[in-house]
Amino acid sequence: MANQEPLIISDKDEMRKWSRTMRSQGKSIGLVPTMGFLHQGHLSLIQESLKHTQLTVVSIYVNPGQFSPNEDLSTYPSDFLGDIRKLMSVPGGVNVVFHPKDLYDYGKGDDYEKMNGREKGKIVSCVEKSGIGHETWVRVENLEKGLCGKSRPIFFRGVATIVTKLFNIVEPDVAVFGKKDYLQWKIIQRMVRDLDFGVKVVGSELMRDEDGLAMSSRNVHLSLDQRAKALSISKSLFKAKFATEQGQVDCKELKDSLIHAIQEAGGKIDYAEIVDQENLEDLTEINRPAVFCVAAWFGNVRLIDNMEINV
Amino acid sequence: MANQEPLIISDKDEMRKWSRTMRSQGKSIGLVPTMGFLHQGHLSLIQESLKHTQLTVVSIYVNPGQFSPNEDLSTYPSDFLGDIRKLMSVPGGVNVVFHPKDLYDYGKGDDYEKMNGREKGKIVSCVEKSGIGHETWVRVENLEKGLCGKSRPIFFRGVATIVTKLFNIVEPDVAVFGKKDYLQWKIIQRMVRDLDFGVKVVGSELMRDEDGLAMSSRNVHLSLDQRAKALSISKSLFKAKFATEQGQVDCKELKDSLIHAIQEAGGKIDYAEIVDQENLEDLTEINRPAVFCVAAWFGNVRLIDNMEINV
Repeated sequence: MANQEPLIISDKDEMRKWSRTMRSQGKSIGLVPTMGFLHQGHLSLIQESLKHTQLTVVSIYVNPGQFSPNEDLSTYPSDFLGDIRKLMSVPGGVNVVFHPKDLYDYGKGDDYEKMNGREKGKIVSCVEKSGIGHETWVRVENLEKGLCGKSRPIFFRGVATIVTKLFNIVEPDVAVFGKKDYLQWKIIQRMVRDLDFGVKVVGSELMRDEDGLAMSSRNVHLSLDQRAKALSISKSLFKAKFATEQGQVDCKELKDSLIHAIQEAGGKIDYAEIVDQENLEDLTEINRPAVFCVAAWFGNVRLIDNMEINV
Repeated sequence: MANQEPLIISDKDEMRKWSRTMRSQGKSIGLVPTMGFLHQGHLSLIQESLKHTQLTVVSIYVNPGQFSPNEDLSTYPSDFLGDIRKLMSVPGGVNVVFHPKDLYDYGKGDDYEKMNGREKGKIVSCVEKSGIGHETWVRVENLEKGLCGKSRPIFFRGVATIVTKLFNIVEPDVAVFGKKDYLQWKIIQRMVRDLDFGVKVVGSELMRDEDGLAMSSRNVHLSLDQRAKALSISKSLFKAKFATEQGQVDCKELKDSLIHAIQEAGGKIDYAEIVDQENLEDLTEINRPAVFCVAAWFGNVRLIDNMEINV
């Protein structure tokens, strides 16, 4: 049963005006930031948001600030009309889809060319590449170096910055992030604490397809064969969880076993780490709530997955 | 004639609650961030703020995040009761003084000690020195390197971060910054643009004492003799402005003349730069609206001053 079509807003001033009008009427607002090409995982974030607030805003924006020039920004999948259809299927409904064109375009003042000239040779993200004068970045200086941050050094800088921008534009009461991107969720929590945002951050559980693969917009790029092989990730995570429950707590052995299984299936490991659930420090032994985080390539597709292990 | 005593709020949640209550009643809020030890310059910022909004919040907080461990945090002057008296003298009045104890203290969770251990040897500000887990910083990556940023490399990182925190706590409609801290004013403007804050930034003119010295809380540390000598700064800035009006547009000659006069008076130059008013790029010739920015030491006191030169 489809809900009413959400209001689609692309202008940031209009978006803020909507939020302020609603808040002046005493309504609470939830924000679910996405990069579009929605799947059941995203819809579960919206369902989580609906538990906390009266109104729901979903943002759909592929953030160039978190991609480096050699990453897959240009091939990141999109299907806006399909996304709207999916959003209309959510029981309870979505009120607004915030779908900006370019959140780093501030118009070209006299000084932009010069600013850009000054920074030549310092192109690290797809925003700097486009050269429109954006120069303010939010850094969560310790956490940003972990997990995905090691192989994608500008990734979390871009994430923290775009989330700051979305918080300032949408001014939500609650924002929901998926625990699939475990470090991202922790980084946003830390940022909200450190910068005193008046926003409550909620983490929503990782969703899997029936075969066990963690849901991701990037899965669409997998061939059937690659997909079958990529199941080695979730299978070995479940196996590690089971092994721990049976008393295996040595992190090196748990990681070696997982790495072996994924490589056996043809995957290329980016990282496989078992870390403390709170501060994401490396563990050598599972003696407190942990999370096993994995990133691996199958063909040209980089997949991430994780499993909380509570001893 | 004294106004009513302002409401003094030290808790950040209480501060945000006050602002939200006022906004829900349709009232607009101006914020004047200060580090206390107020003088006429600060009061002029409040007068500027009163032009734009119905209610005025003045924050008084010496921000450790913008001081490095070898700077003058511990001797920064303060006089809270004197400040309140001065605020009560402002026609139109101040509604709230936000006077937090420590904006970087988030309570000590299990992970803080470890977080701190991880960062040993990376103490660059007085916040990191106190080791309480703050790790999120806002960087305006180009502008922060100019002027005061050269001799105080963490200064503008600290300023941008504390202003972000204050914006998120007070949620003002307008914020007023003095043009005495010219680059700070430009950095906050850039940050607000880049991070999409829903706050209007207003710049307020530099104020001088009758003898010409730019007003500053640090002036209290000058001996009478040092103060007399420090007048060389404002005198040579006025002289440069006059020379430009007479046709002298060569920046090197203008700077040399000012540097000579200040050194002659016993001052130690930190920087003397003539830059574009908009992008703060160095100029070799005054052929567009410029600003002549100076920082110099007299004894242990670092003074800054500037002069806009509109050709």
